[in-house]
Amino acid sequence: MKISKSPLTNKIYEIPSKLDDSQNINEFIKKFQGKKIVVVQGLGFVGAVMSLICSNALTEEYAVIGVDLANENNFWKIKSINEGVFPIIASDPKINEFFDNTKSKGNLYVTYDSYAYSVANVIIVDINLDVEKVSDFDKNLLNYNVDLTLFEIGIKAIGNNCREDVLILVETTVPPGTCAKIVYPIIKECLSKRNLATNRFKLGHSYERVMPGPDYINSIQNFYRVFSGIDDISADETEKFLRTIISTEKYPLTRLGNTNSTEMAKVLENSYRAMNIAFIVEWSRFAELAGVNLYEVVNAVRMRPTHCNMMFPGIGVGGYCLTKDPLLAAWSKQNLFHSDSTLQESERSVQINDQMPLFAFNYLKETFGINLKGKKILLLGVSYRSDVADTRYTPVEPFYDYLLSEGANITLHDPYVDLWDEKSLIVSSDLKTLISHPIDILVYCTNHREYISNSSFISLLTEKPKLFIFDTVGVLLESEIALLSKVHTVKIVGRGDL
Amino acid sequence: MKISKSPLTNKIYEIPSKLDDSQNINEFIKKFQGKKIVVVQGLGFVGAVMSLICSNALTEEYAVIGVDLANENNFWKIKSINEGVFPIIASDPKINEFFDNTKSKGNLYVTYDSYAYSVANVIIVDINLDVEKVSDFDKNLLNYNVDLTLFEIGIKAIGNNCREDVLILVETTVPPGTCAKIVYPIIKECLSKRNLATNRFKLGHSYERVMPGPDYINSIQNFYRVFSGIDDISADETEKFLRTIISTEKYPLTRLGNTNSTEMAKVLENSYRAMNIAFIVEWSRFAELAGVNLYEVVNAVRMRPTHCNMMFPGIGVGGYCLTKDPLLAAWSKQNLFHSDSTLQESERSVQINDQMPLFAFNYLKETFGINLKGKKILLLGVSYRSDVADTRYTPVEPFYDYLLSEGANITLHDPYVDLWDEKSLIVSSDLKTLISHPIDILVYCTNHREYISNSSFISLLTEKPKLFIFDTVGVLLESEIALLSKVHTVKIVGRGDL
Repeated sequence: MKISKSPLTNKIYEIPSKLDDSQNINEFIKKFQGKKIVVVQGLGFVGAVMSLICSNALTEEYAVIGVDLANENNFWKIKSINEGVFPIIASDPKINEFFDNTKSKGNLYVTYDSYAYSVANVIIVDINLDVEKVSDFDKNLLNYNVDLTLFEIGIKAIGNNCREDVLILVETTVPPGTCAKIVYPIIKECLSKRNLATNRFKLGHSYERVMPGPDYINSIQNFYRVFSGIDDISADETEKFLRTIISTEKYPLTRLGNTNSTEMAKVLENSYRAMNIAFIVEWSRFAELAGVNLYEVVNAVRMRPTHCNMMFPGIGVGGYCLTKDPLLAAWSKQNLFHSDSTLQESERSVQINDQMPLFAFNYLKETFGINLKGKKILLLGVSYRSDVADTRYTPVEPFYDYLLSEGANITLHDPYVDLWDEKSLIVSSDLKTLISHPIDILVYCTNHREYISNSSFISLLTEKPKLFIFDTVGVLLESEIALLSKVHTVKIVGRGDL
Repeated sequence: MKISKSPLTNKIYEIPSKLDDSQNINEFIKKFQGKKIVVVQGLGFVGAVMSLICSNALTEEYAVIGVDLANENNFWKIKSINEGVFPIIASDPKINEFFDNTKSKGNLYVTYDSYAYSVANVIIVDINLDVEKVSDFDKNLLNYNVDLTLFEIGIKAIGNNCREDVLILVETTVPPGTCAKIVYPIIKECLSKRNLATNRFKLGHSYERVMPGPDYINSIQNFYRVFSGIDDISADETEKFLRTIISTEKYPLTRLGNTNSTEMAKVLENSYRAMNIAFIVEWSRFAELAGVNLYEVVNAVRMRPTHCNMMFPGIGVGGYCLTKDPLLAAWSKQNLFHSDSTLQESERSVQINDQMPLFAFNYLKETFGINLKGKKILLLGVSYRSDVADTRYTPVEPFYDYLLSEGANITLHDPYVDLWDEKSLIVSSDLKTLISHPIDILVYCTNHREYISNSSFISLLTEKPKLFIFDTVGVLLESEIALLSKVHTVKIVGRGDL
């Protein structure tokens, strides 16, 4: 008997051995006769929220079915949503609002049964596509690969069940070329095997720009969208559907010439971001050397509209997208378009960013000039960005590992994370208690709201015996630095003026 | 007898052997007793216009003296300004307006005599500081160096003449560290040798963000400024002066902690730009391979405010700044701050951008699959950016050289450039006549206004026998491409969809 445990409620669910949910699905859709049925494949950070967006569509009433796998990691989500507990904790109050609304309308059902695809008018593909990165302890990127096997299984599940006139909308971030070279032929082949027409289905691509955090819902519903179709009819149908769920009057849609283009746009966006972070890394080192406050400098430069995207120094890059999307693009160029050259600059960005935590660690070790063995170190923030609970690929992870390898005694704080999943570590959210214990080194790792202008915390800090304070993300204000420096040693990544 | 010839009027000036202009200077300043005297050192693209900005200061009346060297390249400028002809041709009508105003007030005099520094309250340093790049024909950057000798001679000329309480404002783009480690000690030593106080002069740094073209004047007078001083008094005095010439209410000044910071900010700005151009280079190749219109994609991505600085594909990077400033920074890190590592990403940006024209050339050769020997090629635009006459380091130069090395028969057009100085080549501005001759290949090299939406030119083109049209800068509109493609072969850098 397999089980799946909810990390939210700790409730344990038994995974059924017979995976037939068709009766429930049929009962659900019976209640919404005449309404279009939207199926969302994959209930992760995008799909789960996308289900809410569709069940709260702006100009149409849909019956929405979410589908995920009946395995240890995902089965609890299925049960959880059907029991009325949303599986993602986010600081965006709209999530609860949308979910409450959905529950009262009853127009969202979640299942593990591929039978759902057979009743869908629209299928939105929100399953993951990972890059397997092989790095050493120092985060040298030794190799990487994109394995499409699971993604293809997901697409085949659609092709083996879908109606011949379905609209399939791929939202997954994929290597450019995937819709045309992989999804399209798979669906065609499946339909053909099922003796169905192979020229009636529509295939669109439109990437989301989801930003988990306080604007989670808005980052889908109230934001610009780029889309395309495998042919004109597909693009038209995709556009029609998007208009029902997105505020396109305020955020006009952009239609591109083909699916390669939208797929490229998505990975280009994230590569741009990754590259701009990588760019500022060596300037951080230069600033530290030249007695310059790089935060101040970047702020000055960002006054120019042409330079407003410049990034600040930091501890590193995390999350699901920027750490892999440049590699998806580079992989595609070589493997889907058979180029003998890669995207060198994009690969380099990932490599440089992956080593940022190592730099922060070395900086700590060298600047403070102490043996870290047995030192009590408090890390503030473990998630990969401010005000989210998301710890996927957080740069705090290698930083933590480096400290641990030196024998440091590490305590963790994060207002959003109770359990650091990837490390199976308990994280405290009680700053006051943590700070009452002896500490040798305090490190700001994430710029959560709770750490910014927290004057009561700063005054608690000033009462402690001399310690090392290391701000890797520029959380501390000038006045706070001045105050803390009277008692403690304060160092900040990207600042040589302290 | 040495001479200096004006390229504007072709007038030839004899350079005097005795370089004493003190009498004229004294007569000039006598007319402005009680007014502060501002001396601008260097009358290039920045200094010449800076003189106009100062002679038309917003909140104070200055007597302004411009100083340049009495050599072949510069002596004509001195004479020209004093005779009432401004030495820079620009599309900004404000240049003439400001110069007319200056002439009627008579508050600008230009000289070659360092004696001018001795009467100055404020000296603005606008002399050049070049990077010597050693590259092969394929633009591999083999070596580079910054020679401060000439810059130091300029600073010594100030130190050997200036008042002990002068404000020296360095605007030249310099390797970070220059004001503190080079200018300050030189001035101090000179004053000391002259038995003057060495603690009364003020040294500030504030970089211009001059953009030659239609907004030349505004790019100085109505734009954000960053400044600093070698000490607090210097910063205060610099601020006071800048407030008299810049619209600081609308464009607030930003004061940074030290001169290293502002010097770094300037080269960081331009390195950011250079890096973002280098970033898009490999995506252009990918787009061409994947049948993607990268212009369309970049436009879609730029809808996001966080991505609005993304650059478009192109023929290359030119001008005085982006081609060298990243190297100034890298040189400084190693030579002024004695680091054993360079700024690798900044060096790479320069290298990648330097090779863009080579790519465009190879693309032309390969895509069109023809022997270029004897082919009649018309290049549209030789300046390094749209709507300026500036050909310094234009990417069209290596592109031209590559074509020439293949034995092509090249004709040049540019609405702003009559004589391509660096190549000593005549450039026509008569598009109609040029197009009436036989042409095999037409290449858009600069996106001048004249080339955009020029329907009469497009219709002339459609009447010509089949030719190759190669747009390296994305000038052509979709409708124009469609029209031209009916008769000709059209290819565009960064577009694989044609």
